[in-house]
Amino acid sequence: MTRNQSEKLTVIKVGGAVLEDEASLTGFLDRFVALPGLKILVHGGGRAATKLSEKLNVESKLVEGRRITDADTLEIVTMVYGGLVNKKTVAALQSKGCNAGGFTGADMNLISANKRPVKDIDYGFVGDVTQVNQKLLAILLKSGITPVIAPLTHDGKGQLLNTNADTIASSIAGTMSKQYAVSLIFCFEKPGVLSDPDDESSVIPNLSPESYQSFKDQGIIHSGMIPKIDNSFDALHEGVKQVIITSASTLDINTGTYISL
Amino acid sequence: MTRNQSEKLTVIKVGGAVLEDEASLTGFLDRFVALPGLKILVHGGGRAATKLSEKLNVESKLVEGRRITDADTLEIVTMVYGGLVNKKTVAALQSKGCNAGGFTGADMNLISANKRPVKDIDYGFVGDVTQVNQKLLAILLKSGITPVIAPLTHDGKGQLLNTNADTIASSIAGTMSKQYAVSLIFCFEKPGVLSDPDDESSVIPNLSPESYQSFKDQGIIHSGMIPKIDNSFDALHEGVKQVIITSASTLDINTGTYISL
Repeated sequence: MTRNQSEKLTVIKVGGAVLEDEASLTGFLDRFVALPGLKILVHGGGRAATKLSEKLNVESKLVEGRRITDADTLEIVTMVYGGLVNKKTVAALQSKGCNAGGFTGADMNLISANKRPVKDIDYGFVGDVTQVNQKLLAILLKSGITPVIAPLTHDGKGQLLNTNADTIASSIAGTMSKQYAVSLIFCFEKPGVLSDPDDESSVIPNLSPESYQSFKDQGIIHSGMIPKIDNSFDALHEGVKQVIITSASTLDINTGTYISL
Repeated sequence: MTRNQSEKLTVIKVGGAVLEDEASLTGFLDRFVALPGLKILVHGGGRAATKLSEKLNVESKLVEGRRITDADTLEIVTMVYGGLVNKKTVAALQSKGCNAGGFTGADMNLISANKRPVKDIDYGFVGDVTQVNQKLLAILLKSGITPVIAPLTHDGKGQLLNTNADTIASSIAGTMSKQYAVSLIFCFEKPGVLSDPDDESSVIPNLSPESYQSFKDQGIIHSGMIPKIDNSFDALHEGVKQVIITSASTLDINTGTYISL
């Protein structure tokens, strides 16, 4: 048991849709800043990347929500995730009194990854996380910095890699659990995991491995929610205290879906 | 006299032209990594910004080499300086065993600025540096990080600002002189300040305030070199030990132009 075992850290993943709309960005960031304790924000940016790709006549290819990342697309996501979305978010947080620092996984070697091997699909310059730099993240947190992480990693051999933001959030939460009592919150447009996608009041309040399996068997939980919930269980297995899937517009951890082992 | 007074720190500014060409980038970074002691790299990126502006049909307006920065141009430089150039440089340095971290002035509130007041020219979202965060830069250096700084600052009220990279390098060097023995090196395409622009062997080896004035009076030093040399003298007045203007292709501090008070 390390000295900081009981210090609380909240890792929050927010989707691009929230960050790319000025009004919802401001609202979300106000709620983010108000959260007590140490925090790390992980963001997406897919919609802005798609928008820039269109302007530059670079085709956006997505397979099951994952972006196929050729060399041109890698330049675009590096500009959009690492530049535009990350720096706008940081500047906005600074104006709210939060000493945010925006980083990719390449910066300070925060997140290493391997280029995904080609099996059925060649995802291109896409990375699977291999290591999170616990020591440096702890130094930043201790120095009063709130890290804001863009979904980019590197292979240590000079190659930047596009990496799923949910996975980054889950990996950071898991690694930091060695030192902190970590809560992981996935924020998105819906108030939680819904049993009826058309009914926002149908939030499933709790998910265990057993109930998750049962919801999957019944086809109630499917497609895009599955990797998010799989990431949640991965994080819990690595020692994360709690995982909550909730609305970015309330960031209310008392509603939403609690996931536990 | 603080504890670290005698510890050496080298602040290097490198122009965009070097970073945007794969071969010269690699050569420059190899020489940068080989420099002993603590280091901070400040980079430009103007040519890549102009290239992206063209692709996006956004007109690049430059007045005496300074970019007029409207809202669209600010998005472009945020993507190019803060994203593309910065992160490619960081990933390349990581592959060479240098634990680089790429930051804008907004990140961790490293560099604050005021939006330049409109006089004869409205430069738009352009910042004049007001403060460099000595404490945080020192924490990063002490943690083994080599900061790589993109030429963007913020006003603390949520606004990112495009800021001249030479000025950023000079401001960082000046501020860090309170704690370190700082050398400031401006690297560019030429081997130093030339008395004859067409003769690369005509490097002026030393410049004092008096000889600088004399070269200016004779029209030998003019236009683009003047703000660079003015920045050099500003840095020296703030306590920087030495300023050298030299070639990025050799990064040789034994040649080039030495500027001293």
